[in-house]
Amino acid sequence: MNAGHPAPRMAAVSAPARVAGAGEGIGAQELALAARNHALPLEALRHEVTSIGLHYVLTHYDIPATDAARWRLTVHGRVGTPLNLGLAALRSLAAVTVRVTMECAGNGRARLSPRPVSQPWLDGAVGTADWTGVPLRTLLAAAELAPGTVEAVFTGADHGVERGVEQDYRRSLPLQVALDPDRTVLVAYGMNGGPIPPQHGSPLRLVVPGWYGMAGVKWLREIVLTDTPFTGFQQAVAYRYRQSADDPGEPVTRIAPRALLIPPGFPDFMSRTRVVRPGPLLLEGRAWSGHAPVSRVEVSADAGLSWQDAELDPPGPHPWAWRHWRCPWTAAPGEHLLAARATDAEGRTQPVRQRWTRGGFGNNAVQLVPVACR
Amino acid sequence: MNAGHPAPRMAAVSAPARVAGAGEGIGAQELALAARNHALPLEALRHEVTSIGLHYVLTHYDIPATDAARWRLTVHGRVGTPLNLGLAALRSLAAVTVRVTMECAGNGRARLSPRPVSQPWLDGAVGTADWTGVPLRTLLAAAELAPGTVEAVFTGADHGVERGVEQDYRRSLPLQVALDPDRTVLVAYGMNGGPIPPQHGSPLRLVVPGWYGMAGVKWLREIVLTDTPFTGFQQAVAYRYRQSADDPGEPVTRIAPRALLIPPGFPDFMSRTRVVRPGPLLLEGRAWSGHAPVSRVEVSADAGLSWQDAELDPPGPHPWAWRHWRCPWTAAPGEHLLAARATDAEGRTQPVRQRWTRGGFGNNAVQLVPVACR
Repeated sequence: MNAGHPAPRMAAVSAPARVAGAGEGIGAQELALAARNHALPLEALRHEVTSIGLHYVLTHYDIPATDAARWRLTVHGRVGTPLNLGLAALRSLAAVTVRVTMECAGNGRARLSPRPVSQPWLDGAVGTADWTGVPLRTLLAAAELAPGTVEAVFTGADHGVERGVEQDYRRSLPLQVALDPDRTVLVAYGMNGGPIPPQHGSPLRLVVPGWYGMAGVKWLREIVLTDTPFTGFQQAVAYRYRQSADDPGEPVTRIAPRALLIPPGFPDFMSRTRVVRPGPLLLEGRAWSGHAPVSRVEVSADAGLSWQDAELDPPGPHPWAWRHWRCPWTAAPGEHLLAARATDAEGRTQPVRQRWTRGGFGNNAVQLVPVACR
Repeated sequence: MNAGHPAPRMAAVSAPARVAGAGEGIGAQELALAARNHALPLEALRHEVTSIGLHYVLTHYDIPATDAARWRLTVHGRVGTPLNLGLAALRSLAAVTVRVTMECAGNGRARLSPRPVSQPWLDGAVGTADWTGVPLRTLLAAAELAPGTVEAVFTGADHGVERGVEQDYRRSLPLQVALDPDRTVLVAYGMNGGPIPPQHGSPLRLVVPGWYGMAGVKWLREIVLTDTPFTGFQQAVAYRYRQSADDPGEPVTRIAPRALLIPPGFPDFMSRTRVVRPGPLLLEGRAWSGHAPVSRVEVSADAGLSWQDAELDPPGPHPWAWRHWRCPWTAAPGEHLLAARATDAEGRTQPVRQRWTRGGFGNNAVQLVPVACR
């Protein structure tokens, strides 16, 4: 595979990956992506479950035209019993509902310097939904995996060109993740109690708790079991932590810990700077990690010079959903720079200064919220 | 009112309006707005009714925290019988459902040169929904308008600062528009068959068929009848067609005609350039006008050098909703620049070159869609 270099016939429409030049503003192509894809408006962190239209969305190509009534999911490759299932058959199997915080691997990319030129996320590429469907392990058990199977490869109905490579969106999971009893990977047909809407993968998608969103293949139409690791574009070229174009890098997998603050007070339309009144108020937000439960959230009202512990809600029944936290603060007239940082039970925490990668993945630098107290 | 100049205490957070310098890329503030607010992904034009999360959203400040169970709408001012209504009372009145195409007045702003610095819309700030609620005229009749009433002023629960002016979002309608029998202005509590979601104005909003979206005050909490025209910020300062900061300008009201094409084929991830296969295909899209029904749509496959008439769907029961059109095209290998333009029954059509205004409002230049046939 020569996926790093555009095929000649696609070179005119599909340029290689690049980073922005010094002082280069957001360009027309990045803006077009920002207009299509959308972030969680941070005030929506007030809701434990993010409703449709507030949950972040990233679509690599177009949202495909799909028809739930005629949809088929095939499971084949290294299996004893290939499957070909419609929605009715999937709905007849034992269903589970899992509350999952999903974050785009590129969240925070637009704050990097130099900026990788791609979807220019700031910090809101996240959301939490209740996903309903069939555990992937149920389907794989029914298909009877052959010995020596190492991966499951998932294909969506979304089709496009990326860095010169024409493709259906396709990603794999190692079998131990696909079958992990601690994180039920779902073939989901429901979101927040209703059907999955078009932009989130209607009628069927994969949901991989704790992993960045690229793993959750939308418009899922095929699962192939293989005896070799998948080396397609989205696995071997995109979604790697690299320092340079030649660096093979490391795969992007689980979500790094992060806390986000609900910006207090009210905003200015254009600058989004917050205005608060003098006096006591409650700072609140949510925190998550794809590695282990969040065990601590700290808040700073002085740009990270000093920190105080926030109060975390007790652990709930949803280990892969964000956790609510709160911290009282008394605002005094003047300018303040608020911050929050999460630490998980495995000791991972958030940096103040972001580690740079060429694709702009896995960012979890501490969020800074300027506030003017008037 | 001195609304054009920031009050001193807000000047630090809220700068005056400006236009971008020559070659100035999209800045951090514009990007933050683009990440919060979102456009219709153009492939969603395939749906007559736009589902939640695909319909465009513009929020001036924050989405306010609202509680439908305790929500009150008051109607007062120049009325004989002031009203104070909860949701249950509104739902007990005769309801109507109206299919309305809504477009942001700033749609297309980011393509202007020089670019007004604000929400940087390209062309997708539009959507069509089925809105259910009580005709505004029903409420005004119940409130018994006093003689000499000239306007109804609508206030939302969203609060913020804009160009130095702290405000609740507030807009007015002349009484003849509020009572217009040809365009039923709604106090809506339903969208697409369900409750209105938070970002679209939960639990109550105004819907003004044929007018740009700024007229449809969201999170509607108060209607005041007045005997003088409203001169608040959103009426007298923002949302005016101006040529300079000193120009008093003309008010932004009804939606200019526009056609949008569903980009054919499949896209490149980054450039969004379309790739189609050689051979016959059907170009499709939708067209609308807030002045009169769309009477003609023309399509060009050579950047506007020549045009052919598209086939319009027959007029339906929804005069203020977009109209579907289609036009066959045979793609030949090479590069093409597709375009579509709408004309309404009053003869208004779309320019190839956009008239510039300082706020970037009312843009309806012909959309151009580059396509590579491979």
